[in-house]
Amino acid sequence: MNPPRDSLTFPETDRAFLQPHLPPLPAAAAAPPPPATATTHQNGPPHDTTTRLPFTTLTFATSLDSSLALSPGTRTVLSGPQSKAMTHYLRSRHDAILIGVGTAVADDPALNCRLAGVGGFGGEGLAGQPRPIIVDPAARWRFRDDAKIFRMVREGRGRAPWVLVARGVVPDPGLRGVLEGVGGRYIYLPARGVKGSGRWEFDWGEVLEYLCQVEGLRSVMIEGGGSIINSLLEPRFQHLIDSVIVTIAPTWLGRGGVVVSPRRRVEGGVVVPASRLTAVKWYPFGEDVVLCGRIKVDV
Amino acid sequence: MNPPRDSLTFPETDRAFLQPHLPPLPAAAAAPPPPATATTHQNGPPHDTTTRLPFTTLTFATSLDSSLALSPGTRTVLSGPQSKAMTHYLRSRHDAILIGVGTAVADDPALNCRLAGVGGFGGEGLAGQPRPIIVDPAARWRFRDDAKIFRMVREGRGRAPWVLVARGVVPDPGLRGVLEGVGGRYIYLPARGVKGSGRWEFDWGEVLEYLCQVEGLRSVMIEGGGSIINSLLEPRFQHLIDSVIVTIAPTWLGRGGVVVSPRRRVEGGVVVPASRLTAVKWYPFGEDVVLCGRIKVDV
Repeated sequence: MNPPRDSLTFPETDRAFLQPHLPPLPAAAAAPPPPATATTHQNGPPHDTTTRLPFTTLTFATSLDSSLALSPGTRTVLSGPQSKAMTHYLRSRHDAILIGVGTAVADDPALNCRLAGVGGFGGEGLAGQPRPIIVDPAARWRFRDDAKIFRMVREGRGRAPWVLVARGVVPDPGLRGVLEGVGGRYIYLPARGVKGSGRWEFDWGEVLEYLCQVEGLRSVMIEGGGSIINSLLEPRFQHLIDSVIVTIAPTWLGRGGVVVSPRRRVEGGVVVPASRLTAVKWYPFGEDVVLCGRIKVDV
Repeated sequence: MNPPRDSLTFPETDRAFLQPHLPPLPAAAAAPPPPATATTHQNGPPHDTTTRLPFTTLTFATSLDSSLALSPGTRTVLSGPQSKAMTHYLRSRHDAILIGVGTAVADDPALNCRLAGVGGFGGEGLAGQPRPIIVDPAARWRFRDDAKIFRMVREGRGRAPWVLVARGVVPDPGLRGVLEGVGGRYIYLPARGVKGSGRWEFDWGEVLEYLCQVEGLRSVMIEGGGSIINSLLEPRFQHLIDSVIVTIAPTWLGRGGVVVSPRRRVEGGVVVPASRLTAVKWYPFGEDVVLCGRIKVDV
């Protein structure tokens, strides 16, 4: 079976620069498990396997002024076709992809992998298709039966999504019917209310540990949007990130966009940089640049 | 004479990538003048010589979240030693360097060029030293006699600064004495009041034309800070920029910093990207990346 026309190709030559920043390749995963200790995989960055956490990659594309989109609730195409193919390659290299509810509402995303050769795109079954996970503590994603993500599932071109909601929140039964009808589900996790905001907040450590220990996901690619990324870059969560892959487009979107910029960090009364990367590599990629690195936890 | 210990070296191998983004080299400038029309210099980007404007380079260093500094009025060292040497090489390649009064107040900058081989750093006289220009329409820079910039002048290691003030503003006579005592001067140019702000604003076209036509400066490097850069990136001014050189450090400074992000741009009721670059090149440079490009004026 030939891959369908809307499949994407991402050449081996471009894959090489990403390998050191990704979870171990499936071949390595099939080998005997490494000793349960911090270790550098031959084809990936160090990942502490004692923490019972998945390999977590934070990846997104911004403008020069660190915007993901021109305005909240809109989708802005920032990067070129090469970067799009890269995103789908990265998806094929993770067990799950995770976004926030704001992105799900704004983009109607398909959240599948269109890389030529994965399941539904020339490959068998759903091999290489990541599990879509939507972080939606208050269950405010009002999806329709014909949302792109469900169409993909019905066409055998993507996995059914999991929606993470706060324990105690009861999703609309109609929505639940749609979700479960395609094989998806709501997953209830402990969350704490954010004072005075009417919002709920998960503990990222608990979320990731749940996904790894209970659901067996060994790698999660976190794609956005702004509030998810900014939250993960906070001091209390940033140690959970194994790898950061950011595409930067040579454009200034201008003020008022959806900005990636973590909360200001103060230590001993002094403002300090919120987050630093280490083991940094920059790869010019068409008109864009791809930055790969790891969070420097001892900032 | 050996260059003093605080001089910086910037190797030929690193200079190469910058050449296509800089004003013509002195050798070329000494040759018969090119026909007065838009032209691509063999060693520089196209520059419209009919406009009676200097070759204008916009250059600065930001974090991933497009911050120049952690807070207004503070100096933040973002980029590595290589980038510092690059800045001084760039200074040696321009007749003038220009900053806003906010940066002058915050940084007490020397605003000279410390590249080994220029005047005061192993070279003759003040050869290769750019003219420092401070944009200060309301004359609010309260410098002291021992400001770094004046020390450099007295030591023969930098040129005396010019301070651009709004016509009609009368600088403090004491300050004027200090400035003129080292050979610097106030320059009075037309400015318009910004409604309700108590601020004055120059027209960048008028400023640059004055510097070129009256003062004979053929190239100006604009270094910051935030309000100067954001103002130049506005639709009405961005055509004045010949070259953009941005260093990006792999750090998020966090919210509340001095951000480069131009005013939001709306066309036909729709928000559009504020500014785009074309002819883009990315050069990994130590832990940082250097982005060189030109403003795409037909956004």
